[in-house]
Amino acid sequence: MKLTILGCYAATPRTITNPTSQVLEMNGHMFLIDAGEGTQVQLRRRKLKFQRINHIFISHLHGDHFYGLIGLISTFMLLNRQADLHVYGPKGIKEVILLQLRLSNSFTSYKLYFHELTSKESEIVFEDDKVIVRTIPLDHRVYTNGYLFETKHGERRLRIGAIEDLGIDRCYYQKIKRGGNVTLDDGTVIENKDITYDPEPTERYAFCSDTYYSEAIIPIIKDVNVLYHESTFLDSEEHNTQRTKHCTAKQAAKIAKLANVGTLVLGHYSTRYNDITLFKKEAETVFSGTILNADDGAIFNF
Amino acid sequence: MKLTILGCYAATPRTITNPTSQVLEMNGHMFLIDAGEGTQVQLRRRKLKFQRINHIFISHLHGDHFYGLIGLISTFMLLNRQADLHVYGPKGIKEVILLQLRLSNSFTSYKLYFHELTSKESEIVFEDDKVIVRTIPLDHRVYTNGYLFETKHGERRLRIGAIEDLGIDRCYYQKIKRGGNVTLDDGTVIENKDITYDPEPTERYAFCSDTYYSEAIIPIIKDVNVLYHESTFLDSEEHNTQRTKHCTAKQAAKIAKLANVGTLVLGHYSTRYNDITLFKKEAETVFSGTILNADDGAIFNF
Repeated sequence: MKLTILGCYAATPRTITNPTSQVLEMNGHMFLIDAGEGTQVQLRRRKLKFQRINHIFISHLHGDHFYGLIGLISTFMLLNRQADLHVYGPKGIKEVILLQLRLSNSFTSYKLYFHELTSKESEIVFEDDKVIVRTIPLDHRVYTNGYLFETKHGERRLRIGAIEDLGIDRCYYQKIKRGGNVTLDDGTVIENKDITYDPEPTERYAFCSDTYYSEAIIPIIKDVNVLYHESTFLDSEEHNTQRTKHCTAKQAAKIAKLANVGTLVLGHYSTRYNDITLFKKEAETVFSGTILNADDGAIFNF
Repeated sequence: MKLTILGCYAATPRTITNPTSQVLEMNGHMFLIDAGEGTQVQLRRRKLKFQRINHIFISHLHGDHFYGLIGLISTFMLLNRQADLHVYGPKGIKEVILLQLRLSNSFTSYKLYFHELTSKESEIVFEDDKVIVRTIPLDHRVYTNGYLFETKHGERRLRIGAIEDLGIDRCYYQKIKRGGNVTLDDGTVIENKDITYDPEPTERYAFCSDTYYSEAIIPIIKDVNVLYHESTFLDSEEHNTQRTKHCTAKQAAKIAKLANVGTLVLGHYSTRYNDITLFKKEAETVFSGTILNADDGAIFNF
């Protein structure tokens, strides 16, 4: 999976920083997660083929996470997009987008589906044969969800050498990939495990922004390969977390440790800080796994 | 007056071009005209003290003219703005802004006033002792107004030398500035015209975007110092103007000529063109006055 950070700063867009938006490429999908103002320009700047985005996941309706959505929807229209577009986000997102389209007397050239969320429990919001996406209920000032993206177990992988040595016909390959045994013409049964490797392991990416420190999410994100967890503040501003319902880098690291994640990606930095490397330094005092500082334009291949 | 072009391209924001937004500084006011996505970042990039903006004029509710408004309103809130903010624009603008504030559970730290427009006739929308602003009804695909900004006649200017030679006391100065004569102690009447100069001439700036070619606006913009008139297309795309309700550079120049304006500023270029100097070249074949190509970041002092 490949994660492109379009923006990872809190509050207002500035000339040097962008509000939250990321592109997750996973198993052939290109998912957009959050869309602060300027997201469409960031997509162009990073030279992403953004017409490939068919699913957009919005965590909550604070401006720095969705004010760029209407612009992207409009631009898709101007580009005469034909493919369906699905938007997942809190109840209200449909009304605000449709109102703006109505006021501009505009109709999308493509089908636009809204999947409005209201549940306070984790739920599956998207699933196909490759990927499954669940919500991660977060604790913020307004109704907010993170999202857990998980690849599905694929087919078993053929041991071509062994298969050819046994003279197994190609017509059995699909059956073998699905885990079936093969009976040869002489009645010999070839066990699937002898002619296949296990499927590629599943990959899981958890996006958690914005949230107050909440151990309630740990069962959902347990053992994920990569966790993006907001870290709005450094430890010196820990007293601001309760009022604003945000986290410090150390708190993000504690969640990563308790959830036993592989890699922790920090982001959603308050724009009061000039040196974002301090977030990683503070998180390292708590979590010994890999920690990465997100920054606008950063690309992570996992 | 000083005009800063924050963006002057049509349709979608890109890495190299911005949608419509301008700042007009006139007689102590800083007016914002239109606010496409990214306007607040452009304000920062041009190092404008944008908290001085108290009046925002939106021409119409197409995204490239107002999707940046909600972000600016939110940022003013985060900056704990206290001064009143007035927004002028088509009916519907209040609903879309308030809906977004409501969904994010946000309340502005300042008083936010909406002045919704519905009239198809030119009307005064703002007036104080320095400036008067009128609408310029335009012909576009949705309800659209340009805006005419006009300084008011100031006071007469004192001829200090003459006044001091006559020994006129300072207590008469306000009366003289307002046009009054002075009677000296010996009964001599000093005519106002002998001790003052005329007031500074009024300045008028007309903003006209977006619009189909329309001579109906000429009586309103007659003789303005500066006319910004949209020129979405070059002559080769004139066939697109009727469907899209836009203009060519030549048509903008024809309006400038018929209205006898001082300077014509072209803008709202379709992003299909790479060389915007062609707009000026084509306009020059029609209008012999000064023609300027607007470009993002351009500053014009008139």
